[in-house]
Amino acid sequence: MNTEFHAMLRLQAACAEKGPLCVGLDTDPSYLPPEVLRMYDSPAEAVLEYNRALIGATAPHAACFKVQIAYYEALGLRGLAAYAETLSLVRAAGIPVIADIKRGDIADTAKAYARAHFSGDFEADIVTLNPYMGFDTLEPFLEYVGKAGKGAFVLLRTSNPGMKDIEWLELSQSSAEAAGASHASPVRVLDAVGAGLSRIADRYGDFSASGCAPFGAVVGCTEEADARALRDRYPGLFFLIPGYGAQGGAARIAATLLDRAGGTVNSSRGILTAWMKDPSLELKKSSGSLSMKDIAEAAGRAAFSATAELLGAKKALAASSPAATGERP
Amino acid sequence: MNTEFHAMLRLQAACAEKGPLCVGLDTDPSYLPPEVLRMYDSPAEAVLEYNRALIGATAPHAACFKVQIAYYEALGLRGLAAYAETLSLVRAAGIPVIADIKRGDIADTAKAYARAHFSGDFEADIVTLNPYMGFDTLEPFLEYVGKAGKGAFVLLRTSNPGMKDIEWLELSQSSAEAAGASHASPVRVLDAVGAGLSRIADRYGDFSASGCAPFGAVVGCTEEADARALRDRYPGLFFLIPGYGAQGGAARIAATLLDRAGGTVNSSRGILTAWMKDPSLELKKSSGSLSMKDIAEAAGRAAFSATAELLGAKKALAASSPAATGERP
Repeated sequence: MNTEFHAMLRLQAACAEKGPLCVGLDTDPSYLPPEVLRMYDSPAEAVLEYNRALIGATAPHAACFKVQIAYYEALGLRGLAAYAETLSLVRAAGIPVIADIKRGDIADTAKAYARAHFSGDFEADIVTLNPYMGFDTLEPFLEYVGKAGKGAFVLLRTSNPGMKDIEWLELSQSSAEAAGASHASPVRVLDAVGAGLSRIADRYGDFSASGCAPFGAVVGCTEEADARALRDRYPGLFFLIPGYGAQGGAARIAATLLDRAGGTVNSSRGILTAWMKDPSLELKKSSGSLSMKDIAEAAGRAAFSATAELLGAKKALAASSPAATGERP
Repeated sequence: MNTEFHAMLRLQAACAEKGPLCVGLDTDPSYLPPEVLRMYDSPAEAVLEYNRALIGATAPHAACFKVQIAYYEALGLRGLAAYAETLSLVRAAGIPVIADIKRGDIADTAKAYARAHFSGDFEADIVTLNPYMGFDTLEPFLEYVGKAGKGAFVLLRTSNPGMKDIEWLELSQSSAEAAGASHASPVRVLDAVGAGLSRIADRYGDFSASGCAPFGAVVGCTEEADARALRDRYPGLFFLIPGYGAQGGAARIAATLLDRAGGTVNSSRGILTAWMKDPSLELKKSSGSLSMKDIAEAAGRAAFSATAELLGAKKALAASSPAATGERP
């Protein structure tokens, strides 16, 4: 199995080069000013053109793009055509693209999902997956690591309040042992997921010092103590880190999660709606004369600022505790 | 809130009228004989025409249809056009349609998914949802109960071997209490989901004697003891029951799950590929002259047989333990 060039390693390299920002294309038509929206025949077309302009403007600062399929499904068939085209645009630019699909299903159905999102109209480099139904549901996606260099992020600790309902529940001692997660205390449901992902990572060699496994984990940047514990517990897993920016997560917590194998920090709304708060656009906003170029450029500035903030936080963390950081050479 | 005519009650009534069969349209092009497949311009078109013929042939025995979106996503944009058209065909026939999408995501993203699958091109009556990220992820779908009479099945105990990895793990005593699931022993992750669903059901009144809540649960028919325990623990939840037929689940176990509020028993491959085992088609099969009509009629016969088997098992169960069954008037 060729594990030299899988997408997660490409993404890790892009983060080392450009900084850790993942630009989220959770593009809702309502994020566009009305004067721009009405220039297009349909909301889906407007979304696609916004994505096109935004990819161009933010590419220098985007280690990757994450496309949240829910927003495109909500626009029906035209929305999914815009989704397919958006994936193509990012891939054509040579930038890794994450399909945020959070699928999870059994056997033949999981195979169909893997085929759907790792080939054909909706081909992405990396997908997000939901582990609730068990680790057998991940296998069809793992097959694409060897045959097409694909990767996946599996939900581990999400950034929403409902995280407490299932992910955060503590296991009995016997189940903790059965799940192979006795290293944590207390052992939670999310640790059973983490232990399963660690076993998958082990198939691809030792990533504790550098590199990363083709399957990573989604870990929200909402609690400092959690971030530290999870980062240290899974040193070889590359993280997809939501919750920064609009969801309130601090750059400092994100920096903690960027330690060891590292990760990519998602910002969606903060960049997509940057034009709303951009002081240089005040006049155009008040006169209703914003153009697509204006809002894409505002997104570009926001991506630059986010990258600078994240790199600054990473540097500050490294300076305060040099022993804890695992910078790759 | 008008809870009189939500989709789950319509489905429950359809099961009382026609029997509990849910015909699964997990339609893979490979389920079609080559001589039929090549009559169409694309696999997606063949799938749509197969669905059309199959809906016609099985409608008398189908309380509902369940459309597994993964198979359509795997065929790209054309596949999703076939998916949209399939949902329309079932709805036009006045039969409840379940979109087997197993989505689950946070806040605004969950709202987008709810809009996507409860309105527009992909409008279904009922969807399936994944609870891993917590109960807040279900709320946007619950809004459509009141405003559009929609319903959902939430994954509780699935029928795949990986079920043991997360769903089946035992909780610590403190987490079991926090999850409000202290009624079971041992309390498992799936009981935390069940307790959450019971709290949701409580918002819609007392369904312990008859009727059902607008949100039900997915419970696989793979273990008799499980089936009995889960059926008794959640009397007001209507169940979507996979694992019957091709997945090996016995009619007897399904019958146990059909007790109380009842449920609908899914058969997909057993019906979709019935032509392969249909003795009346032997001659046509060997001469490569099967038509779409032939394979749809085989599906119709298989749906009739499945319904007869399930109703027989239900009757046998009622006869053996009349006190345990909760037949509705």
